[in-house]
Amino acid sequence: MAVIKPSLAKGTRDFSPLEMEKRNFIFETLKSVFAKYGYREIQTPSFENLQTLTGKYGDEGDKLIFKILNSGDYLTKVPANLLADRASAPLVPHIAEKALRYDLTVPFARYVVMRQHELTLPFKRFQIQPVWRADRPQRGRYREFYQCDVDVVGSDSLLNEAEFILIYHEALANLGLTDFTIKLNNRKILTGIAEILGKPELIVAMTVAIDKLDKIGVDGVVTELLDRGFSPEDLKRLQPLIELEGSNEEKIEHLKQVLAPSAKGLQGIDEVETVLGYVERLTGDKALTNRFVEVDITLARGLNYYTGCIFEVKTNEVVMGSIGGGGRYDDLTSMFGLKGLTGVGVSFGADRIYDVMEELSLFPAGTGQSTKVLISNFDKLAELYALPLLRKLRDKGLAAELYPAATKLKKQLAYADAKRIPYVVLIGEEEIQSGLLSLKDMQSGEQRRLAEEDLVTHLTMS
Amino acid sequence: MAVIKPSLAKGTRDFSPLEMEKRNFIFETLKSVFAKYGYREIQTPSFENLQTLTGKYGDEGDKLIFKILNSGDYLTKVPANLLADRASAPLVPHIAEKALRYDLTVPFARYVVMRQHELTLPFKRFQIQPVWRADRPQRGRYREFYQCDVDVVGSDSLLNEAEFILIYHEALANLGLTDFTIKLNNRKILTGIAEILGKPELIVAMTVAIDKLDKIGVDGVVTELLDRGFSPEDLKRLQPLIELEGSNEEKIEHLKQVLAPSAKGLQGIDEVETVLGYVERLTGDKALTNRFVEVDITLARGLNYYTGCIFEVKTNEVVMGSIGGGGRYDDLTSMFGLKGLTGVGVSFGADRIYDVMEELSLFPAGTGQSTKVLISNFDKLAELYALPLLRKLRDKGLAAELYPAATKLKKQLAYADAKRIPYVVLIGEEEIQSGLLSLKDMQSGEQRRLAEEDLVTHLTMS
Repeated sequence: MAVIKPSLAKGTRDFSPLEMEKRNFIFETLKSVFAKYGYREIQTPSFENLQTLTGKYGDEGDKLIFKILNSGDYLTKVPANLLADRASAPLVPHIAEKALRYDLTVPFARYVVMRQHELTLPFKRFQIQPVWRADRPQRGRYREFYQCDVDVVGSDSLLNEAEFILIYHEALANLGLTDFTIKLNNRKILTGIAEILGKPELIVAMTVAIDKLDKIGVDGVVTELLDRGFSPEDLKRLQPLIELEGSNEEKIEHLKQVLAPSAKGLQGIDEVETVLGYVERLTGDKALTNRFVEVDITLARGLNYYTGCIFEVKTNEVVMGSIGGGGRYDDLTSMFGLKGLTGVGVSFGADRIYDVMEELSLFPAGTGQSTKVLISNFDKLAELYALPLLRKLRDKGLAAELYPAATKLKKQLAYADAKRIPYVVLIGEEEIQSGLLSLKDMQSGEQRRLAEEDLVTHLTMS
Repeated sequence: MAVIKPSLAKGTRDFSPLEMEKRNFIFETLKSVFAKYGYREIQTPSFENLQTLTGKYGDEGDKLIFKILNSGDYLTKVPANLLADRASAPLVPHIAEKALRYDLTVPFARYVVMRQHELTLPFKRFQIQPVWRADRPQRGRYREFYQCDVDVVGSDSLLNEAEFILIYHEALANLGLTDFTIKLNNRKILTGIAEILGKPELIVAMTVAIDKLDKIGVDGVVTELLDRGFSPEDLKRLQPLIELEGSNEEKIEHLKQVLAPSAKGLQGIDEVETVLGYVERLTGDKALTNRFVEVDITLARGLNYYTGCIFEVKTNEVVMGSIGGGGRYDDLTSMFGLKGLTGVGVSFGADRIYDVMEELSLFPAGTGQSTKVLISNFDKLAELYALPLLRKLRDKGLAAELYPAATKLKKQLAYADAKRIPYVVLIGEEEIQSGLLSLKDMQSGEQRRLAEEDLVTHLTMS
């Protein structure tokens, strides 16, 4: 067998110990906040039956689903004409009955429908697992990446929406982020706007255009709206809404007046007010709420999906796309035949949060420091001497290692350096005779002599 | 679009919150032990280039690798004759350039070779990720399951072997297992035995037969050995070894005499003795070592792979196959062109450990109890009253929920029951007026009245 030069599959990544420790810091922080709000973890399989996934993500999405080739003689029963015509797409369902998870939402819907008779509603779950997409890989876009979703189904209470805002706030604050904005909108407000313009049929066109505000600016949005069937008259009424500024209260007051003729629109505003009211009462701090929650009616995010409140989170400390988003949907499980189950959920963009934290140096100093102390290895005698010490250190719960060979000290110290081990115990002939061991602080370079018992105590305390 | 009845792909599983909490208990316990011994986590991608995986697991293994269909017009450049002949197997490399991870060992080897110039050796890593095999699903055998591997490469010290025995012992003890056996053998002992019989070429045949002792008994092994080319004379020398009993010291003494003519065999015995010596010194307890480590020369485990010590772990509390195993290999990375890198590693069978723990009821009482307290929801007024209390509970770090709708109390208590929430706070008109809240202990059914502050303190303490 020819030896092949090893490489990663395109668009995939390995995670080194240091990267894993940082990623785990993020995931563990998120998990503990989710748990505090009553959310519990589930996992679904990496692959699903192909028909569970197809037709859920649009034609473009379907193309990006990774299909798994059937095993064995998978060509035996394939229609001959498909082979003769090299009909790649029509052949797929004949040779691939399974496909890799494309997101966490559809498998979650499947899970809920399959267990509908045993689940106690409301069902609050979170899920942190990789998903796969056959996208063209590029900087920051991978074919395998983790999604981190938190959802509750079976409750229409706006308390849930409010708690997602709190979850965002607490999770990001716990990660060390200090300046971020949780944007809040409601699909019904957008519907109301389209209604008062007398063009409810143009709601999708309208929101697709408005949603681009960040990218193409007000002028770009105006041009696109005119292209998409809105009149200059419409724009006169729409533009002030797009450019709406002020506090959340001011925006809400203004919208109430403008949307007065639309019952739907007013309902949307009422929902936003209710959510903000919950948040204020749950934080006990109105100023805080106003500082990190911003009503933004230009926020749309997958409009065809969301039916109520819509969220998006941005950091203001680093230039970066949204680091989270979500909203309420009324139709999650109808794709699998279970109608009328409402839900609301948000997701965290773990890769982007990682990049933000790197840029701001937010990972705690200890991250990536797994072993507390390395015992150096001078010779067989020192090794023998070191073994009971190693046991005592570990008995105290300390992560400790004995260098497994009597190589040059320089090499052993380089090992400690590479693993960011903060302390090294040096045991040579002198130490064994005197019973005083040398403890080297790898950061300061300082070295001190300690009796074994004091050394263990010192390391346990530090 | 026709609504499809949702189902799981064959051989895959969902994990419910309760199952996840139990699984996480196992994984977190293992991880903390691994870290204590200086092992750090890495992750590799779920799929690899097909050529990275093929040829590593034998012909049967290759068939069980799940291949991922190329995207787009994957048939365009396929040789016409393969399509015409419906040549399923030869077509694979033309339409599938990627495949799902089959184990954690080959991706780890790829990782090490790709990073050989940046890694500081010895490199100690653990990895807990799912793998996929196109096996026929059956009870206890899944197409997606987690492997949990711990390995060190770049160190030939037998201290590593000894520490794996300690890792097994500490991890299983921390999980609550009390009676298990870590079996220890050495490939060189097996080689030595074949040598002294004058049939070194029959080593594979010999060990394949001996390895079946548990399943077919001594008589079965004897029959198979005779079938495979050993003479009745050989059997006279071999059988006493297969049936070797006594303490580890007695077995070692006996083997030393029998294997005296084989340098290789003696080296194997010496290695086993050295490992046991390290273990004794690291535990400080010879009796303990003898109780949970058993020298067993019938242990073979993938003999063609291991070159030194071989491990296998069995629980003695439940009838169950091995719950872990591993050994030393000298050739892990040569498949990717990096020769001479020795390593040793073990794995934990998480699914089996889960089953053992279920059967013995070893999961701690709190497992699956994620929320500490539920505040019931009587009406809008009570909800308003409850919100600041909810904040205070969470500020104390307690996982707390407010039931999100004013439904029947019975339904709310059923929710608490289903989520194993141990406490429910009842807030009605009377409670609001008196300021004394009712706290219901869901296990005892007992109910008491407490001022808000006392209630928070009580829950924080309990």
